Amino acid sequence: MTQADDPPLHFRLHVFICTNRRPDDNPRGSCAQRGSEDLREHLKDAQKRMGLKDVRINSAGCLDRCGLGPVMVIYPEGVWYSFTTVADIDEILDTHLVKGGRVHRLMVDRPAGS
Amino acid sequence: MTQADDPPLHFRLHVFICTNRRPDDNPRGSCAQRGSEDLREHLKDAQKRMGLKDVRINSAGCLDRCGLGPVMVIYPEGVWYSFTTVADIDEILDTHLVKGGRVHRLMVDRPAGS
Repeated sequence: MTQADDPPLHFRLHVFICTNRRPDDNPRGSCAQRGSEDLREHLKDAQKRMGLKDVRINSAGCLDRCGLGPVMVIYPEGVWYSFTTVADIDEILDTHLVKGGRVHRLMVDRPAGS
Repeated sequence: MTQADDPPLHFRLHVFICTNRRPDDNPRGSCAQRGSEDLREHLKDAQKRMGLKDVRINSAGCLDRCGLGPVMVIYPEGVWYSFTTVADIDEILDTHLVKGGRVHRLMVDRPAGS
């Protein structure tokens, strides 16, 4: 939990995209197997083109929500998205990373109080 | 930035440890080259032994603070640590992950207002 004298955030938003890959015959599947690596590249390229320097796009190992994959989590808010297409990524980029909103149709968890 | 109706956090604390590895002759070095993989394993093993289930320990690609590595960042607070030994990891585990405090001697960034 945040404390009053914690340092300011180093990145305004820090995005972690699961790029874990399991063997093709593993019944659990994996985010990389479902295309997360290319979608991450697309997001990084778009971010670079836009000069969005206070956001960091990272790859991550298994985020332990495999059944929902490909998944990403955005901190400090801890909002999770499940995404499958370039259009999904573009919407997350524009709505969440640029404008600070939420893409409700792709969110994994229910809002507080629902 | 967090919004009032954001879902509750899926993990109480989410730890990302850089396990990026560059070729041995790369002058920038890398966190893996400096031992981050074994230290991550140590942290995961200790967490498992303690049954600390609301914390997730993840590996991550390059966190872009290579000169300070090995590094980790803990969200949602966004506190960064630079660590080199098993004793460092044990102190972060006990002080931050279990008790919610800070290991000031290992923190990368200065406190707010300093």
